[in-house]
Amino acid sequence: MSNRKNGSVREKLHEIIFESDTPAGKIFDIALLLLIVASVLTVMVESIEAIHSRAPRFFLIAEWGFTVIFTIEYFLRLYCVYRPMKYARSFFGMVDLLSILPTYLELLIQGTHYLMVIRALRLLRIFRIFKMGHFLTAGNTIVRALKASRRKITVFLSAILLIVIIIGSVMYMVEGGQNESFSNIPRSIYWAIVTLTTVGYGDITPVTGIGQFLSALVMILGYAIIAVPTGIVSAEFISERNMESSNQACRFCSREGHTSDAVYCKFCGEKLNE
Amino acid sequence: MSNRKNGSVREKLHEIIFESDTPAGKIFDIALLLLIVASVLTVMVESIEAIHSRAPRFFLIAEWGFTVIFTIEYFLRLYCVYRPMKYARSFFGMVDLLSILPTYLELLIQGTHYLMVIRALRLLRIFRIFKMGHFLTAGNTIVRALKASRRKITVFLSAILLIVIIIGSVMYMVEGGQNESFSNIPRSIYWAIVTLTTVGYGDITPVTGIGQFLSALVMILGYAIIAVPTGIVSAEFISERNMESSNQACRFCSREGHTSDAVYCKFCGEKLNE
Amino acid sequence: MSNRKNGSVREKLHEIIFESDTPAGKIFDIALLLLIVASVLTVMVESIEAIHSRAPRFFLIAEWGFTVIFTIEYFLRLYCVYRPMKYARSFFGMVDLLSILPTYLELLIQGTHYLMVIRALRLLRIFRIFKMGHFLTAGNTIVRALKASRRKITVFLSAILLIVIIIGSVMYMVEGGQNESFSNIPRSIYWAIVTLTTVGYGDITPVTGIGQFLSALVMILGYAIIAVPTGIVSAEFISERNMESSNQACRFCSREGHTSDAVYCKFCGEKLNE
Amino acid sequence: MSNRKNGSVREKLHEIIFESDTPAGKIFDIALLLLIVASVLTVMVESIEAIHSRAPRFFLIAEWGFTVIFTIEYFLRLYCVYRPMKYARSFFGMVDLLSILPTYLELLIQGTHYLMVIRALRLLRIFRIFKMGHFLTAGNTIVRALKASRRKITVFLSAILLIVIIIGSVMYMVEGGQNESFSNIPRSIYWAIVTLTTVGYGDITPVTGIGQFLSALVMILGYAIIAVPTGIVSAEFISERNMESSNQACRFCSREGHTSDAVYCKFCGEKLNE
Repeated sequence: MSNRKNGSVREKLHEIIFESDTPAGKIFDIALLLLIVASVLTVMVESIEAIHSRAPRFFLIAEWGFTVIFTIEYFLRLYCVYRPMKYARSFFGMVDLLSILPTYLELLIQGTHYLMVIRALRLLRIFRIFKMGHFLTAGNTIVRALKASRRKITVFLSAILLIVIIIGSVMYMVEGGQNESFSNIPRSIYWAIVTLTTVGYGDITPVTGIGQFLSALVMILGYAIIAVPTGIVSAEFISERNMESSNQACRFCSREGHTSDAVYCKFCGEKLNE
Repeated sequence: MSNRKNGSVREKLHEIIFESDTPAGKIFDIALLLLIVASVLTVMVESIEAIHSRAPRFFLIAEWGFTVIFTIEYFLRLYCVYRPMKYARSFFGMVDLLSILPTYLELLIQGTHYLMVIRALRLLRIFRIFKMGHFLTAGNTIVRALKASRRKITVFLSAILLIVIIIGSVMYMVEGGQNESFSNIPRSIYWAIVTLTTVGYGDITPVTGIGQFLSALVMILGYAIIAVPTGIVSAEFISERNMESSNQACRFCSREGHTSDAVYCKFCGEKLNE
Repeated sequence: MSNRKNGSVREKLHEIIFESDTPAGKIFDIALLLLIVASVLTVMVESIEAIHSRAPRFFLIAEWGFTVIFTIEYFLRLYCVYRPMKYARSFFGMVDLLSILPTYLELLIQGTHYLMVIRALRLLRIFRIFKMGHFLTAGNTIVRALKASRRKITVFLSAILLIVIIIGSVMYMVEGGQNESFSNIPRSIYWAIVTLTTVGYGDITPVTGIGQFLSALVMILGYAIIAVPTGIVSAEFISERNMESSNQACRFCSREGHTSDAVYCKFCGEKLNE
Repeated sequence: MSNRKNGSVREKLHEIIFESDTPAGKIFDIALLLLIVASVLTVMVESIEAIHSRAPRFFLIAEWGFTVIFTIEYFLRLYCVYRPMKYARSFFGMVDLLSILPTYLELLIQGTHYLMVIRALRLLRIFRIFKMGHFLTAGNTIVRALKASRRKITVFLSAILLIVIIIGSVMYMVEGGQNESFSNIPRSIYWAIVTLTTVGYGDITPVTGIGQFLSALVMILGYAIIAVPTGIVSAEFISERNMESSNQACRFCSREGHTSDAVYCKFCGEKLNE
């Protein structure tokens, strides 16, 4: 179904930009990765005032330089890909676009160019470029396990949301008067999240006895319910793990559950397929 | 056994309030959800002094407005439901009642109207209204797994309680003299819970060498025993997961819950489909 | 082999103190639990200076009162039990003794009477008294799972110990000069434990760039390796869980793995034993 | 293939240093362990200025003493081992070398001698010396489970890295102006790691409403995704656990690793014992 076009320059470009089998393709990919890393590091370093103030022009030029290169690259990708719209709407197509927008957006709204760190996501291509297939498989397993547990996680997070709203309000009533840290309900909810997730900054802490008692209950609750997402996701990983190790059925007795090193069926003793 | 009454207004009302199949029922449910969200947000915003002080009358009126609406709704529910007492004692019936009480309670005890955030729990109806059956199933799985592990969790929490009482007292003896943060045993127990659950506010920290050494032991203990609730709940989720993965029903007795290696129905002994 | 003695007073006492089947035994047990709770609460409240200073005599008398009662009880237990040494060396025998010693120790070393909170451990009898057998089973499961994983946990903790020694020393070298919080290696190791276990008090925090970079690595390490004890213990709980649900073998095909609700063997279709 | 030499002194030395079956070998090993512990404790105590300043000469001499002893030991090991290069490149060979270098390095770069705490790693020999084979097995299980999950953990950590870069930059944009704690992107990334891993020092905390809202999301994210490494590692431990629980060897090919439901050997196809 691929409406492949025979424009030879376009074909050549596609090979260089989208594939990494040819030497030119490999060089392009590696150069691109280095450029992305350099560009992200530039943004980070630029944000350090002491360094930025020494050479503000340098950073301005570097940033526009990177952005112009990535903009050209983006349009080249659109030009040489077989189905431009499919690319543009794919995960990497979106990331590629979002990676160049912040610099232009900076012309309209100051301070937004830092968003260009989103181009760090482009580094995910690294697994494809270096043929790290095993890592892609590992990544897919993680994504699959998370997808399989998304409904349970959603229900869990909804419950957490309701819990922190109620806890936050109760703590506001208890501590509000004596403790200016709990000056309103949204702040108290923020505290409840800090506590329930066991982050515990300590920027807002209860001072009354009853407040500390309630906090202790919240902590123990948080300590106990971390078992819930963990249990949900673990169950999926174990299910995935069992799949991995038992995707072969015996030709004779049709039973499954053979480990990957099995040569003979453990139930009937017949030889398994290679 | 349903003592359904034929009062047509009552029937109609029941359809609108308790069901969401008709357009009117759907509109009612969505309007109700929006009202609940608006009402919870109002309470939260009201607690921010800077905003409240600008329009105290507005918040007073809004709150009473919401409460009057929810009160009418509560009595309508009682009026049109087939078995009023069953509804009144159900989880949602209790929540509906608790959602309106705080505003009235405020007339007696100042500061209690914030408790009306409990009406956030009414939002749980969202899963039923939007027919998010899969989420209800997911929620049930979580509840079932937690129920199955409630005894182990209870024993675990009892052990934690005894541990923090003893640790707290020892730390009071060790730090009490040199560190006014550990001024009494209840505070030291609060510290023990903050530490054991890895929350770690930092509002109370040991200053003596021996105190820091003991704290380090408590931290490592807390880091290690979080494995206990997690392991308990994970085991239940995995058990649930195994049930799920084999959703085959027996042709003869129609019952489900067969594991994937089952050949015969465990309930009636008949052969299962391949 | 039980060298049961027929002194009827002794027999009667044993029935009251060690058993809870008779009304007298039940009353004794409940009174004892209440006394223990009262005594632990007294110690906690006494440690609050503001309360203690109001009635120092009251606390002195209360404490000695409780201790005298528990001392008499301890000797009565020794007197009426069939094998005094076996009781004295059992877990509860040790706890009973340790519960009365601190008050007497206070006469020698000031401040040690707080150790009497160890009598809180006596509350564990609650599960036996109220015939909460299911909870005892749950507790045994936890203990069994922890015992089964004790070697792996020991190896894990040894590794943690070596890691924090090395990390602590490196951080002392990095931060020591610029940050007085990292004034020596033991303190830096304390920091490493606070960080690795994700407690994060914030009483000692890195201030140099390189120190913060290393800290970030330690945090991610701590975040990742919490999976190790959790995985170890989870595996044991799952193993326990599988045992629970499949402790019956089919009489006909001898295969196991039947869930608790199974009536027929899922492998051969024959009826299982009740 | 072992090019064992018959120099009797060398043989004798090898027996003492590398084995612990003979009394001399046992004494050597225990003396060595004690020396290592003493040497690590010396470094730690030396770093406490108050103690060091009292007897600086003592620490200088002690350190050089330990180092000279360990240097001699290292060369003796090289001398008497059958294959010096294999030893030198083994894990323990590297650790033995690294344990003596820091003292010499101190002559060149001041402050580096603290690195000698790395000799704590030499204590790992303890499991071999005391024939704690079960612990070695436990350690191997942990290492195997971690190795089996290394790809998934790598992908997970890469995702975490990208997430904290993006979150850190967004928080810098949000908080940067109002909060000098978020003075640049690297610091903000440090904050993101502190928060996501639930360490929560509290040295850098958001002050704006929107910043606190975003932080709350980061915390909940961190709370939820800790389930990922835990699930990954748990699945491997469970897989390892299933292997362990069936330690039956085949009578014909002597290989192990059969699951408990196996009837035939999966390697040679012969029937297993009941």
